[in-house]
Amino acid sequence: MKLASLKQGRDGRLALVSRDLSRAVLAQAAETLQAALDDWATAAPKLAEEAAALEDGRAAGAFTFEESACAAPLPRAYQWADGSAYVNHVKLVRQARGAELPESFWEDPLMYQGGSDSFLGPQDPIELADEAWGLDLEAEIAVVTDDVPSGVTPQQAAGHIKLIMLVNDVSLRNLIPGELGKGFGFFQAKPSSAFSPVALTPDELGEAWDGRRLHLPLLSRLNGAVLGKPNAAEDMTFDFPTLIAHAAKTRPLTAGSIIGSGTVSNRDADGGPGKPVDQGGLGYACLAEVRMVEKIRTGEIATPFLTFGDRVRIEMLDADGQSLFGAIDQEVRRHAER
Amino acid sequence: MKLASLKQGRDGRLALVSRDLSRAVLAQAAETLQAALDDWATAAPKLAEEAAALEDGRAAGAFTFEESACAAPLPRAYQWADGSAYVNHVKLVRQARGAELPESFWEDPLMYQGGSDSFLGPQDPIELADEAWGLDLEAEIAVVTDDVPSGVTPQQAAGHIKLIMLVNDVSLRNLIPGELGKGFGFFQAKPSSAFSPVALTPDELGEAWDGRRLHLPLLSRLNGAVLGKPNAAEDMTFDFPTLIAHAAKTRPLTAGSIIGSGTVSNRDADGGPGKPVDQGGLGYACLAEVRMVEKIRTGEIATPFLTFGDRVRIEMLDADGQSLFGAIDQEVRRHAER
Repeated sequence: MKLASLKQGRDGRLALVSRDLSRAVLAQAAETLQAALDDWATAAPKLAEEAAALEDGRAAGAFTFEESACAAPLPRAYQWADGSAYVNHVKLVRQARGAELPESFWEDPLMYQGGSDSFLGPQDPIELADEAWGLDLEAEIAVVTDDVPSGVTPQQAAGHIKLIMLVNDVSLRNLIPGELGKGFGFFQAKPSSAFSPVALTPDELGEAWDGRRLHLPLLSRLNGAVLGKPNAAEDMTFDFPTLIAHAAKTRPLTAGSIIGSGTVSNRDADGGPGKPVDQGGLGYACLAEVRMVEKIRTGEIATPFLTFGDRVRIEMLDADGQSLFGAIDQEVRRHAER
Repeated sequence: MKLASLKQGRDGRLALVSRDLSRAVLAQAAETLQAALDDWATAAPKLAEEAAALEDGRAAGAFTFEESACAAPLPRAYQWADGSAYVNHVKLVRQARGAELPESFWEDPLMYQGGSDSFLGPQDPIELADEAWGLDLEAEIAVVTDDVPSGVTPQQAAGHIKLIMLVNDVSLRNLIPGELGKGFGFFQAKPSSAFSPVALTPDELGEAWDGRRLHLPLLSRLNGAVLGKPNAAEDMTFDFPTLIAHAAKTRPLTAGSIIGSGTVSNRDADGGPGKPVDQGGLGYACLAEVRMVEKIRTGEIATPFLTFGDRVRIEMLDADGQSLFGAIDQEVRRHAER
């Protein structure tokens, strides 16, 4: 089934959405997605029946689904743990600044604890106070878990994946070096992330979801032009069950925990850092990679970070070109003075 | 007023607690503390009336307050952002490993994003899978905010402090070097934190709370012996409004955000790293400091980290010796195999 949270109050109002994203109906089994996740074993079968009724045209009170009416599926969550599963991305970042990639990075996942209290809806503007902070998109996949016990194995973790979403992990690149240099990880450099209008149960993805990775291109656009279309399963060094097990090594994860993949990034066919789309490559899911590849190839960075008025769009299409999650589609705006 | 969340469901059941911590009554104005914080301007005056009735013996349904019946005031929260405001603590940690303290650390707060989805109640055991992880307590103060806009100043931030609590920021010391070495901050090294039974509105603290710092000793015990009694206002380089403004620099903070002080740590009267309590000093709020001072003074670390069966107790007494927040009192237990 496909689930959305319509903007209402702090946690939204849970709705079922039709497969083609044209119709929706308010959920009866739970008011909010968090409430459904808190008792998923009970709520999921009921929601599935409601979704089936909507699909069959039997749902009373169905209405036209508007992506613009959506908050993030979890407008605020108890956990946002973002991995960095595409080690190619990490390697490029380090290569551009002349740092070696430690061998252990291929064995031990990188993950940071993100802020989860104030997510952006899929069409909410990104409010930026200062262009000098170096605003960037990061197109990612994320999964939502039920309750995960501490010390879970990757094999066990796979069964705890209940929903899948897309993310724009908004980043302030020019704040990152100073912040990471202090040693405690990201904080100010990671303002509120945005999520796709719709969260999917894994069964909605058919063979594109193998229980561990999502085998489809993730499409990012900047001001209408395709920035990247890397396949989310390729070069994903750490799959989602491995990321969940990493997160749960020393503590349990509460239902509704969101685990991110990190920026999707594919190597080139020749093993190189990947080409821009207009040069026949798969492009990039963030501007930092564009800039790093420019620096590696030419010594000069040509592409700026995002500026006021820029628009980013992130979505995933199935084999027939149908949008699966709806689109994250955000404009960069100047943060209003208070 | 004093507020507690009795263990019930995922979010507890909000109760008012008498000043002397002897009596409690279920709150009528809100079922949970998060619900109260979501609409604090409306809920707080009603809760204050209920608290006054309890204090006057007029509350119907009042019962004996048991700290052991408490979950954390927020059993799960949308944000746990922990500062490191006592730069003396940071300096000691670095000194012990031969690293310089950058001058900027006196100007720019250190803060990490902590996991907030699964807090421990004040008397919940600390379940540890492996003693080799180097389990430590960290006794801290934390404040809870209402909604804080992005870009708030420290002056404005002071007005957003609604509640004050004590924390045991449980840490796995031997996982920290590897994790920080990867550059993305803490994750596995910071399992679930525990909080005091009771959260206080600032007015409950009288002159001990000056709107920015809490001027009382924070008492930590290990297996009954006093480990430390540093004053929480002394050597607090960054006060709470400054920490909140730091957290809100690039994004808003949602109501119910918890901002921690970091391990309370006082310098010695002579400016040195502080003496153990049995040598006439104020002692320490974590074992890492004990060990670092041993190393600095003698070259040898004598004190081990926590082991199964150890008990830690953290509380704060007023001038009359009355416990203000109730006690965090936790036993270390072996994590049960699943």
